[in-house]
Formats: sequence, C-alpha cells, structure tokens
Amino acid sequence: MYDIAVIGGGPAGLSAAVNVKIRNKDVIVFTGKNPTSPLLKAPSVDNYLGCPSITGEELLKKYKDHALKLRIPEYPDKVINIFKTSDYFVINANNNFIDALSVIIATGIPRNRYIPGEKKYLGKGVSYCATCDGPLYKNKTVAVISEDNEGEEEANFLSELAEMVYYIPLYKSIYSLNNNVKIISDKPVKITGDDIQVQTLQLKNQSIDIDGIFLIKKVTPITELIPGLEMDGGTIKVDRMMSTNIPGVFAAGDCTGAPYQVAKAVGEGLVAGLSAARYVDTVKKEVV
Amino acid sequence: MYDIAVIGGGPAGLSAAVNVKIRNKDVIVFTGKNPTSPLLKAPSVDNYLGCPSITGEELLKKYKDHALKLRIPEYPDKVINIFKTSDYFVINANNNFIDALSVIIATGIPRNRYIPGEKKYLGKGVSYCATCDGPLYKNKTVAVISEDNEGEEEANFLSELAEMVYYIPLYKSIYSLNNNVKIISDKPVKITGDDIQVQTLQLKNQSIDIDGIFLIKKVTPITELIPGLEMDGGTIKVDRMMSTNIPGVFAAGDCTGAPYQVAKAVGEGLVAGLSAARYVDTVKKEVV
Repeated sequence: MYDIAVIGGGPAGLSAAVNVKIRNKDVIVFTGKNPTSPLLKAPSVDNYLGCPSITGEELLKKYKDHALKLRIPEYPDKVINIFKTSDYFVINANNNFIDALSVIIATGIPRNRYIPGEKKYLGKGVSYCATCDGPLYKNKTVAVISEDNEGEEEANFLSELAEMVYYIPLYKSIYSLNNNVKIISDKPVKITGDDIQVQTLQLKNQSIDIDGIFLIKKVTPITELIPGLEMDGGTIKVDRMMSTNIPGVFAAGDCTGAPYQVAKAVGEGLVAGLSAARYVDTVKKEVV
Repeated sequence: MYDIAVIGGGPAGLSAAVNVKIRNKDVIVFTGKNPTSPLLKAPSVDNYLGCPSITGEELLKKYKDHALKLRIPEYPDKVINIFKTSDYFVINANNNFIDALSVIIATGIPRNRYIPGEKKYLGKGVSYCATCDGPLYKNKTVAVISEDNEGEEEANFLSELAEMVYYIPLYKSIYSLNNNVKIISDKPVKITGDDIQVQTLQLKNQSIDIDGIFLIKKVTPITELIPGLEMDGGTIKVDRMMSTNIPGVFAAGDCTGAPYQVAKAVGEGLVAGLSAARYVDTVKKEVV
C-alpha cells in the first residue's frame, strides 16, 4: 500500500512526488510508457524562474533527475482507471492493481476527444485496455485503434487470442506487428451497434464488422479515469489547495486548466503534494 | 507609465516580472531596500523542481539573474501605498509617484502585526513614510519605530526638520544616526492620544510625549497598501487566475496564503503575470 499515487510523470506530477517524498511519504509515479509532456517539444523555455533559456527536453531531464535523486519509484504501465474502496484507492495500471491512500492526478492537457459512439459502447465492446478485457474476445474479431506504438504490443497480445485483429494506427511509424494482425490505414469515423454490444467500426473509406474495439490512448480521458470526478468545462475542478470533489484525490498541472505553463504545473504539484501528505496523515491518525 | 508594477522582489514577484516581460510588457519591480524574502535564510531548498539541494541564497541569486538577463528594472524604494485613478494606478514609493496600468502584489508573508493604537491613529499622527509626512512635523517632537536600518535614514531626515527625534529600533545593529537623534532601546506597547491626534507613545519602561510617530516597517501591511483590497483571514483573497477583488490588481506568493513555498510562489507569479498582461491588453484595446 502506497501513501500516495501520482498519475503522470510531467512537471506537475514530478513536483508533487518530490514534495511528498520529502515529507516521508511512500509515493509511486505512474508515467506511462511514452512521455506525453508537450514540454518535450518546446525548443526553448524562458519562463521557469531560475532556469532561463533551456530546451524543454533539458528542463524535463532536470526534473526527472531531481526525482531520481530522491529515489522516487516510477511505474511505466498506463493507468486505465481508479476505484475507491471505503478506505483507499485501487489503481488499475494495465491490469496490475496498486493500492494507495491518496491519488494526485497530473495527466496533462485534457484530451477528451471521443470517436462518436465511443462513450455509448464503453464497456459494451469498447475498452481502453487489452490486458484487462482481451480474454473476452477469444476467437472473435477485434479492432485496435492506437494513438502510439503501445497499441502494437496490445494488438500482438490480442492476436494470440482473437480470430482476427485489425490495427488502425493514428500515428506514423514502422509497425512491429504479428503476421496475423491486419493494418488498416484509415480514419475512424463512428462506432455503431445495437443496444447491447458494438457491431461495426466505420472508417472513412470502409466499414468493418467487429466484436470489440480497443482504443489505446496516450492518456486515458480524465472523465473515464475515476468515477464521479467533478469537471469544470473540460478540466478538473479544484480549489486553491488542489483538492478535487473526491476526498483524497488531488489534481495539478495542465489537467486543472490554463495557463499551460511549467511553473504553474510545478507550483500546483507542490500544493497538491502537500495537501495529499496532510490527507494521508489525517487518514492514518484515524486508523490508529 | 508602466504596463505593470510588481510589488515585491522575491520568487513570486520575479516570476511575475519575467513572465510579463516575455509578453513584451513594460514592467517595474519594487524590491524595497532590504530583501525580506525568508528564502534568504533557508540553509537548503530541496523541493524546487529541477534545482535540488541548493541554498536559499543561491536559489534567489538564480532568480535575480534570470530577471537581470531580461533587463527588468528594479526600484529600491519601499511602496507606501497605491491609489487607483479611473484608468490606472499610482504607486507611492517613498513619495516618488510611479504610474502603472496594473499592479501585482507579491509582498511575501503577510505581516499585519500592529501596535495597539497604530491603526486608530494612522493619518492622525501615525505615518509609515517620513519623506511623505515629515514636513508636517517641523519643530515638533516625533518618534521613529523601525524594523530595520532603513529607519536610520528616515530618522536623520526628520532630525533636520523636527525639534526632537526619538529612535526606537526593533533590531540590533550599530546605528548611523545624527547626534540630535535620541535612541531609546525599549519595546513599544501602546499608542494613545485624543480623538484628533496622537499624543503619547507608551513603551515598556517609559512613556514619551510626541506629536507624530513614524513606523518604518520592512513591508507595508497589505491592508494599508491599497484601499478596498479584500482579505481572507490575514491573506489576500484571490481566485485561480490570481485576480483580487480590484480589477487590475493581482497577487501571488506568500501574501495569498500557505503553503509558504517557493514553487507555489513561482507558479502563482506566472499565473498573476499572465493575468495582468491580459488585463493590460484589454485596457489598451479599450483606449484605442
């Protein structure tokens, strides 16, 4: 059981992790396999006070080195969703289940774009996790729509179970796929079915009949990550202490809204971290 | 006329200044003569992401170098108060008057301790600024109560006007005072008078009759800095964009409340800076 689970390994998540670690809390950071921080693409960051004229990549390296120095454990599996028990949270990271007393969400700019039909059929044939739901599709036909190369691994895993796997990559690359995975280079347009189950994936230039669709996103949409989390427009609603509406869940950085800037993310990470540490202290006191 | 005046040269103020400067705004930072940032006294700061294990002094040096690199002008005179005209703000820095379209308050941990009677007689013989109000006390008797050596200059200035100047230092030092300034090493207890004017300064071990009292504080109490500023307990009330209740006035850092940490101050400075820059853009558009 960890004290605090931080979802996201960008500036906000690392700042939160560093601060709770300094407060002697057991912390784990879920980074995902592929870094998604837009900081990586910044050719020059000039406004993080004390570190002028630095590339985004160098700055993120400094951040990671800081966390590394404090021996903060990172976990590369992507968080699919988070459940609350009466006392703690269970984080499902690609079907590995990790417990924590408190959660800090720092997943970056909210990407809540959905394919029409996606939300309707989530849990009715649409899934974000092959490891979790793959076994349901033994000898069936599935499609994997993926935002990055993580989907290739998922498609290969599914190809060992399912009869037919279509792979629709939303990125350009040389794909490492098993022979029995069929790549379709096309744009998903709509997910359709009956009231019970998904049936068809409509692409721009064709339609395919499927039993299941796996959507491998860089970041799980916040609204699917944890049930009941209150949003404000497209971002997580927080107060000045970075508390969300769910006791024990805090948020920091781009996922709480603009400005999308590292100093804001780092500052909010600190505040969320200290709030989570305080929450953990209170919870532990109650148990004793 | 400056676009933006930043009151305070600590982490929050410098972060705000750096960010508005990058947005091409004319900015001036009022630092005060003596740095008051508690950061200076921190033997080791471990939680400003990207800069692990650094002394507070070194970190503040990095911050100042960043501002210096961007050629941000600093103004050493202490801000006594701020007036709002219909279109802009007038900053009274020791009787030098500087105009700005927007103000960012970043004065640090709120020090709103008052001597009993201080608030009652403010403007009725109690003043925070010798340069401003000294001339009223020609041939009269005044006391100067000072938190730091800035008061010595003020007392010497007053000694050229007043008949009698008592100097009550609240700090230990070798004092540089004119011969006709009388040092009293005692603790102020109460300020008394009639309904119109201050009359007596009660110290722990004696009482002195005076016509005026000058309180030279490291930082002007926030509640006296700008009329009508809404507080929340002892700190400035702000929203998530660091706006105060007065349009055009923003706040950042310790003066907005705990946690009193540099990353929080730097993050809030950024947000306040971007909010002020946006405000200035709007005001200028309205004028055109």
